[in-house]
Amino acid sequence: MHWHEIRDPQSPELDRLAERYRLHPLHIEDCRHRNESAKVEESRGYLFAVLKVISLEKDGSVGESDLDIFLGRDFLITVEEEHCQPARQLLEQVRGAASGLRADQAFYRITDGVVDSYLPVLDHFSEVIDELEDQVLDRPTPETLGRIFETKRALIQLRRVLVNTRDVAGHLQRSESELIHREMWPFLRDIYDHVSRNLDLVEMQRDLLTGSLDIYLSSVANRTNQVMKVLTVLGTIALPALVISGLYGMNLKGLPWTDSPHGAAIVGGLMAATTAILLAVLRLMRWF
Amino acid sequence: MHWHEIRDPQSPELDRLAERYRLHPLHIEDCRHRNESAKVEESRGYLFAVLKVISLEKDGSVGESDLDIFLGRDFLITVEEEHCQPARQLLEQVRGAASGLRADQAFYRITDGVVDSYLPVLDHFSEVIDELEDQVLDRPTPETLGRIFETKRALIQLRRVLVNTRDVAGHLQRSESELIHREMWPFLRDIYDHVSRNLDLVEMQRDLLTGSLDIYLSSVANRTNQVMKVLTVLGTIALPALVISGLYGMNLKGLPWTDSPHGAAIVGGLMAATTAILLAVLRLMRWF
Amino acid sequence: MHWHEIRDPQSPELDRLAERYRLHPLHIEDCRHRNESAKVEESRGYLFAVLKVISLEKDGSVGESDLDIFLGRDFLITVEEEHCQPARQLLEQVRGAASGLRADQAFYRITDGVVDSYLPVLDHFSEVIDELEDQVLDRPTPETLGRIFETKRALIQLRRVLVNTRDVAGHLQRSESELIHREMWPFLRDIYDHVSRNLDLVEMQRDLLTGSLDIYLSSVANRTNQVMKVLTVLGTIALPALVISGLYGMNLKGLPWTDSPHGAAIVGGLMAATTAILLAVLRLMRWF
Amino acid sequence: MHWHEIRDPQSPELDRLAERYRLHPLHIEDCRHRNESAKVEESRGYLFAVLKVISLEKDGSVGESDLDIFLGRDFLITVEEEHCQPARQLLEQVRGAASGLRADQAFYRITDGVVDSYLPVLDHFSEVIDELEDQVLDRPTPETLGRIFETKRALIQLRRVLVNTRDVAGHLQRSESELIHREMWPFLRDIYDHVSRNLDLVEMQRDLLTGSLDIYLSSVANRTNQVMKVLTVLGTIALPALVISGLYGMNLKGLPWTDSPHGAAIVGGLMAATTAILLAVLRLMRWF
Amino acid sequence: MHWHEIRDPQSPELDRLAERYRLHPLHIEDCRHRNESAKVEESRGYLFAVLKVISLEKDGSVGESDLDIFLGRDFLITVEEEHCQPARQLLEQVRGAASGLRADQAFYRITDGVVDSYLPVLDHFSEVIDELEDQVLDRPTPETLGRIFETKRALIQLRRVLVNTRDVAGHLQRSESELIHREMWPFLRDIYDHVSRNLDLVEMQRDLLTGSLDIYLSSVANRTNQVMKVLTVLGTIALPALVISGLYGMNLKGLPWTDSPHGAAIVGGLMAATTAILLAVLRLMRWF
Repeated sequence: MHWHEIRDPQSPELDRLAERYRLHPLHIEDCRHRNESAKVEESRGYLFAVLKVISLEKDGSVGESDLDIFLGRDFLITVEEEHCQPARQLLEQVRGAASGLRADQAFYRITDGVVDSYLPVLDHFSEVIDELEDQVLDRPTPETLGRIFETKRALIQLRRVLVNTRDVAGHLQRSESELIHREMWPFLRDIYDHVSRNLDLVEMQRDLLTGSLDIYLSSVANRTNQVMKVLTVLGTIALPALVISGLYGMNLKGLPWTDSPHGAAIVGGLMAATTAILLAVLRLMRWF
Repeated sequence: MHWHEIRDPQSPELDRLAERYRLHPLHIEDCRHRNESAKVEESRGYLFAVLKVISLEKDGSVGESDLDIFLGRDFLITVEEEHCQPARQLLEQVRGAASGLRADQAFYRITDGVVDSYLPVLDHFSEVIDELEDQVLDRPTPETLGRIFETKRALIQLRRVLVNTRDVAGHLQRSESELIHREMWPFLRDIYDHVSRNLDLVEMQRDLLTGSLDIYLSSVANRTNQVMKVLTVLGTIALPALVISGLYGMNLKGLPWTDSPHGAAIVGGLMAATTAILLAVLRLMRWF
Repeated sequence: MHWHEIRDPQSPELDRLAERYRLHPLHIEDCRHRNESAKVEESRGYLFAVLKVISLEKDGSVGESDLDIFLGRDFLITVEEEHCQPARQLLEQVRGAASGLRADQAFYRITDGVVDSYLPVLDHFSEVIDELEDQVLDRPTPETLGRIFETKRALIQLRRVLVNTRDVAGHLQRSESELIHREMWPFLRDIYDHVSRNLDLVEMQRDLLTGSLDIYLSSVANRTNQVMKVLTVLGTIALPALVISGLYGMNLKGLPWTDSPHGAAIVGGLMAATTAILLAVLRLMRWF
Repeated sequence: MHWHEIRDPQSPELDRLAERYRLHPLHIEDCRHRNESAKVEESRGYLFAVLKVISLEKDGSVGESDLDIFLGRDFLITVEEEHCQPARQLLEQVRGAASGLRADQAFYRITDGVVDSYLPVLDHFSEVIDELEDQVLDRPTPETLGRIFETKRALIQLRRVLVNTRDVAGHLQRSESELIHREMWPFLRDIYDHVSRNLDLVEMQRDLLTGSLDIYLSSVANRTNQVMKVLTVLGTIALPALVISGLYGMNLKGLPWTDSPHGAAIVGGLMAATTAILLAVLRLMRWF
Repeated sequence: MHWHEIRDPQSPELDRLAERYRLHPLHIEDCRHRNESAKVEESRGYLFAVLKVISLEKDGSVGESDLDIFLGRDFLITVEEEHCQPARQLLEQVRGAASGLRADQAFYRITDGVVDSYLPVLDHFSEVIDELEDQVLDRPTPETLGRIFETKRALIQLRRVLVNTRDVAGHLQRSESELIHREMWPFLRDIYDHVSRNLDLVEMQRDLLTGSLDIYLSSVANRTNQVMKVLTVLGTIALPALVISGLYGMNLKGLPWTDSPHGAAIVGGLMAATTAILLAVLRLMRWF
C-alpha cells in the first residue's frame, strides 16, 4: 500500500496524484476549498471521505479542521489542513503502526481516531453543563447567561459535525464497496455506533441546556417576586408610622393627646398596633 | 445448555470463553468498557446483547448498570457490572428456574426481567410529577424549581435508555435468527410492546413536566403581579395623607383652617375623602 | 356465531374459552392485567384487540376502561373491566341488533361504537378551551392556570389513547386477515378516518391550549407593566409635594416666602407646577 | 356527461342517484353529516371527493363549507352545503363553460377553483401578520394580544384544511384511476404544487406569528424594565431631600446650622449634592 | 445548441418558442405568473426548472427573483423576471463561456451560479447574528428586538427558498433523464451537497437566533430584578431615617432626648444603627 501524505492542499503534489489515480476534479476542489461538511463519496476506483477533527480551543469554543482521505485499492491519500495539531498527531500514530496494514485497515484506524477525538470535547461540555445547572439554581448572574449561550452555540456546532459524521459512518457501514474487505464491516459498524451514541449525548446536553435557560428565567422571576415582597413588607411596616407621624406634624389644632404628657407613647403604640394588624393581614394571605 | 456467569468482566475466564465460542474482540471490548448503550448484534453463531438494568438511587437519581448477554445455540454467557444488586437478583431468580430451559428461553426471561425493572422507576416519577404539579400551582418555591430540574434530567436519561432498549426489542422481534425458536416470537413481541408503552409514558411525563415549568413561570409572574397591586393599593391609600400632612407641616402662613379648633378633623376628613376617591377610581379600572 | 361475554376477567370461564379456542396465554394475561394500551394482534385462528372506552368523569378528568375482544371465524369473546357503564351499554346495544350478524360485523359495530364514544369527550374539551381562551385575555387568575393545566393533562392522555387506537384502526384497514370479509374493508377504513380526524382535533386543541398559556403569560406581564405605570405616575404626582413640603417643614432659617402672608399659596402653586411639568415629560415619552 | 347538482344533501334525489350509480352508503352518509375533512376515496366505478371551500367571514374568522363530488366515467355529482355563496358561484362558473367537457375535466376545474379560493384568505392573513408585527414592536396592547390569538386560531384551522387538501391532491396525482385521462396528470400535479405552496405559506405565517408573540413578551418585559428604572431614578432624586428635610423637621436640639441665617441654603446645597452623587453612581453603573 | 434568452415573460417570442418546442401551457403560465417556488418538472422532450436568484436588498431584507429554464436536448430557454441585476449578470457570464457547451452543461453552470449566489447572503446573516448576540447580552434595547425579528423573518424566507431548491437539486441528482449526460451526475450531486450545507447553516442560524431571543428575555428579566434590588436597598437605607424623623417631627410630648443638647446626635446615631442592621440582614440573605 502507498500512503501519500499531503500537508498543504495547495501543493502541486496533489495535482500529480489526481492525474495518476484519476481523482475527480470536484474532489480536488473540495480538498482546496475548506469548510466542507463531513461526507463520503464513492467514485470509480476510489472512495473520497472528508472527516472533521474536533479540538477544544483555549477560549472554550470548538475548533474544526478538515481531514480529506482518498481510499483506493492499494493507495491512501490524506490531505490535512495546515497547522492542525490533533490531526497531525493522529496520522503519525496510525502511520507508525501502519506497516503491513492494508489501505482499508489504515483508513479504519484514521476514522476511528477521528471519532475518538470527539469524546473529550463532549465530556468537557458535560462538566460545563453540570456547573451551569448548579449556578442557575443558586446564583443566576448575567455571566451565567453568557456561558449558557456560548455552550449552546458550541453544541449546535458539534451536533452539525456529528450528524454529518454519522451519515458518513452509516454510508460506510451500508456500503458494499469492494475497496473495503468484508472482515472490516463489524468495525465500521462499531464506528457508527460510537458516533450515534455521541450524537445522543449531544442531544441530551442540548435538552439539559434548554432546561437550564428555562430554569434561569424562572429563577430570576422568582427572585424578582421575592424582592417585591420584601419591598412591600417593608413599605407595609413603615406606612402607618409615616402617615400617623405626618398627621401629628401638622400645624393644626384639635388632634387628640397633643397635651397629654404620654402623648408620644400613646401615638407610638397606635403606630405599632396598625403595623401589627397589617402584618397579620399579609400573614393571613400567606405572603411570608 | 451451558450458562456461564461472569461477575467480573476483567476476569481471564471471559477470554477463555471468547476463544472457545469465537466471540468477536469488539464484543469483549464492549463488555469491558462500561457505559455502553443498550444494543443487540448478530454475529456468526451467536447473538450479543447489552441490556441496561435501572434502579432508583437513594438521592432520587436513576442508576444504570450494564448486563451483557451472549446467546448461542446451546450456551448463554452473562457478564455483570460489579456490585449491581438488582441485576444479581434477577439472574439468580432466572437461574433458579432455568433447569430444563433452552438458551433462548432463559434469554427471554432475563430480558423480560430487565424490562420489568423499569416500571417501578416510572411509577416513582409519576408520583413525583403529580406532587410537583400541586406544588407549582399552590406554592411555587425555588426548591420546586430544583426538583423539576432533577426530574427532567432523570427523564432525559430514562428516555435514552428506553429508546435504545426499544430498538433492541424491535430488532429481536423482527430478527429471524435461527438461535431463537419460532414459538418465542409472541413473547419477544410482548417485550417490545412493554418497552413501547413505557416509552410512551416517559414522553407523557416529559410533556407534563414541561407543562409544570410553564405553569411555574406563569404562577410566579401572577404572584408578582398581585404583590405589585397590593403595593400600589397601599401606596394609593397612604399618598393623600402623606401629601396633605406634609403641606400642613410647613412653616408657612396662609394655609386654611390653621386657626380653627376643628382643623385637624377637617383636614383628616379631606385626607379620607381623597383616599376614597382614588380607591373608587382603581375599583372602576377593575383592579381589585 | 357464538358471542361469549365475560364481565369479570378473573372468572374461570375465560380459562375454559382459552382452552377451547386455543387463545395465547399472553393474551389472557393482557385481559387480566389492566392498563394495557389499545392494540391489535393477529394469532393463529383469531384476532385479539384491546380497545379503550373513554368517558368524562364528574371532576372533568378522562376515565379509560379496557374492552378486550377475541374475533374468530365463528366466535366473538368480549372481556370487560368491571363497572364500566359506557362499555356495558355499547355491548348491550350491539348485542340487541346482533342476531344474524357475522362475527366480523359485530366486531366492526363494537369498534365503531368505541370510536364514537370519543366524540362527546372531544367536544367537551373544545368548549373548555374556548372558555379558557376568553378568560385568559379578560381576567387571568391562578384558577385559570389550574384549569389550563388539567385540560393539558387530559389532552395528553386522550392523545395517547387516540394514537394507539389509530394504529389499531390502521392495522385493521391494512390487514388482509381472512377473518374479516372483504366487504367490511370500506367500513374499517371509515373507522380509521374517524380516529385520524379525532387525533387531528386533539392536536389542534393542544396547539390552542399552548397558545392560551403563552397568552396568559403575556397578559400577566402586560398587567404588571400597567400596574407599574400607575404606581410610577402616582409617585410622580406626589414626589414634588412631598419634597417641597419637607423643605418647608425644616426648622431652619432663610427659606423664601416664610414671612409672606401668601406663602402657602405661592409654595402650593410651585408644587402644582412641578407636578405638571413631570406629568408633561411622561406624556411626551408616551407613557399614558 | 351527466352533471347532477344536489343543493340540499337531505333531498331524496341523492338517494335515487345513489341507487342508480351504486354509490356506497358510507359516502352518502358523509354527504349528509357535515364537518368532514377533505378526502378522496376510490370506489368501484367512481371516485368520491370531499373538498373544503374557504371564505373569510366578516369578523375575520375563517368559514369552511363542504363540497362533495362523485366522479364517474360519464357522470359527475356535486353536493353542496346550503347557503355557501363561494361554492355556488364556482360551480355556476364551471358549469357555464362545461359544455363539451369530459367529467374528469369538469372535476379538475372545480378542484382548481376550490384551491384558488384559498389564496385571498392567505393574503389577508399575510397582511394581518405584517400589521401585528409593527404593533407588537411599537405599542403592544392587550388588544394586539387578542388579535394574535385569533389569527393563530385561524391559521391552525387553515393548516388543517390545507394538510387534508394536500393529501387529496397527492392521492389524485399518484392515482392511476382509469376515470382520469392521462393528459390530466400534469394539471393534477399543478394543483398539488399549488396546495403545497399554500401550506408552506401557512407554516411560514405560523412561524412569524409565534415570533410576534415572543416579541410581544420581550417588548412588555422591556417596557416594565424601563418603567422600573424611571421609578428608581425618581426615587433616587427624591430620597436625599426627603431624609434630610425629615431630619431638620425633628423637634430636637443639636442639629448644625439651625441658627445660621443661611441654614436653608446650606442644607439645600447638601441635598442637591447628595442627589448629584447618587445620580453619578447610577450613571457609572450604565443605568441611563 | 440554441440558447433563447427571454427577458420579458410577456413577450410573444415565448409563445412562438412554446409552439416550436411543444412546451406545456401550464409551464408557460408558470413563467408569466411570478412568485412560483423553485421546482423542476420533466415533460415530454424537455425539463422545466424554476430557480430563485437571491440578493440582499439595501434595507437588509432578502429579494427573490425567478429564473425559469427549459432544457431540451439541443436547446435552452431562459426566462428572466424584469430588472433582476444578479440574474442578468449570471446569464451573461455563462453565455460568454458557453460556446461549444452542450445544453445540459450550460444548464449546470446556470444552476451552480444561482446556488453560489446564496452564500454571500448567508454570510451576511451570520455576521448580523454574531452582532445581535453581543448586543443582547451587553445592552438589550427595543431596537435589538426589532432587528432580531427582521432577521428571523429573512431566515424563514431563506429557508423556504433553500428547501425548495434542495428538492430541485435532489430531483436532478436522482433523475435519470436522458437530457442530462451521465458525466454531469457528480456535478449535480455537488450542487445538492452545496444546497444541503446552506440549509444546515440556515437551520443553525435559526437556532442561534431563537437562542438570542431567549437570552434577550432572560437578560431583561435579570436587569429588572437588579433594578428592583437597587430600589429596595435604597428604600431600606431611607426608611429608618424617614420613620424616626417623622416621629420626632410630631407635636407631641414625651419623646425621649427632646431636651438633651445632644438629642440630634443620639437620634441620628439611632437611625444609622437601624439602617446598618437592616443592611446586615439583607446581606445575610445574600442580596448584594
